[in-house]
Amino acid sequence: MLSGGLDSTTTLYYVLSKNYSPICLIFDYGQKHKKEIKFAKKIAKNLGLEYYIIKFNLPWKGSSLLDKNQDIPINRKLNSTKIPSTYVPARNVIFLSYAISLAEVMKVKYIFYGANQVDFSGYPDCRKEFILSFQKMANKATVLGNKGVKIEIKAPLLKYTKSEILKLAIKLKVPLELTWSCYRGKKRPCGVCDACRYRKKAFLTLGIKDPLEN
Amino acid sequence: MLSGGLDSTTTLYYVLSKNYSPICLIFDYGQKHKKEIKFAKKIAKNLGLEYYIIKFNLPWKGSSLLDKNQDIPINRKLNSTKIPSTYVPARNVIFLSYAISLAEVMKVKYIFYGANQVDFSGYPDCRKEFILSFQKMANKATVLGNKGVKIEIKAPLLKYTKSEILKLAIKLKVPLELTWSCYRGKKRPCGVCDACRYRKKAFLTLGIKDPLEN
Repeated sequence: MLSGGLDSTTTLYYVLSKNYSPICLIFDYGQKHKKEIKFAKKIAKNLGLEYYIIKFNLPWKGSSLLDKNQDIPINRKLNSTKIPSTYVPARNVIFLSYAISLAEVMKVKYIFYGANQVDFSGYPDCRKEFILSFQKMANKATVLGNKGVKIEIKAPLLKYTKSEILKLAIKLKVPLELTWSCYRGKKRPCGVCDACRYRKKAFLTLGIKDPLEN
Repeated sequence: MLSGGLDSTTTLYYVLSKNYSPICLIFDYGQKHKKEIKFAKKIAKNLGLEYYIIKFNLPWKGSSLLDKNQDIPINRKLNSTKIPSTYVPARNVIFLSYAISLAEVMKVKYIFYGANQVDFSGYPDCRKEFILSFQKMANKATVLGNKGVKIEIKAPLLKYTKSEILKLAIKLKVPLELTWSCYRGKKRPCGVCDACRYRKKAFLTLGIKDPLEN
């Protein structure tokens, strides 16, 4: 699952470094930063990978990431335990559901999920507990799973801090200039939303410059 | 979740008979029998209920219900344990994922699912085991679930035979002429696909005429 952000792109490069043959799954779900879709497409295309874009929308919104009448929160305390308004209810469940559909049809064994539960905003669907539970459900839901051909959901970055992710990205030669994090999706990263601030902190920690800041 | 078929419509009328206030969730996912969507809309409208239609498609198909190059199987042995080609991988997982998104945003407590594991085609995602596992996952995935405000997935028809469902439908005054079952979605029910045959069997057992056969 490829959003075009730093985490999922690093996950993709990690997958390639392990010699798997990934199929990229990109989601166009009415997010304010739909700009990330272009980034995701470019990453997949540059690598010559097969990709699918799933388009849908959630008419009930319920998130500042979707709702034009709600602002993206800025300058929040990082690693706060309060779930921010950018949380999209069950969005990652929906994403993963499409992934298991693709996995069953294409006989794919692993779903790679760029979730991270260290430098994150407290989203419940980014935690190990959720991932394990989803995996269990997926194997009851599918014909293959019931035959014992298990689907596994892998989240290799789960326990990484954002700067550890960035370090790995650099090691794997991730084209950082092709990754988009900012929730606001304007011409340049806003620098003050959660996504920008975690990213900024990582670049600061490693003492390098974010190519998007040029 | 309302497909416009006999099972989900009966489930809806059951929900109303229990004095709940349902919101209907209808899916437009490229099914060959897209005709059912019109039926579902009409049912919801006639009852004056709030409804949402979620539109998406599965580019990888993987089912004769979606793929124009694959015929809907006909005259299969009923209650065969062989999963038919009409099975859409992870489709019901996707449906339920949207339902938990809506449930979290609207603070809905119950999701009603018209699944049935007696007179059915052996789909793995229509079994109790799957439903319980999905519910567990849903409560780990959502903010409300993690706060202990549990979402419950109810499948009141799970253990009913098709004729018991039809009997209940008649008791609840379900407008049978507004329910559509046939997978082929032509002008009239084909009579030979799984959906038609289970329906036919039920009407035969009760010795009544299907209004769609007129």
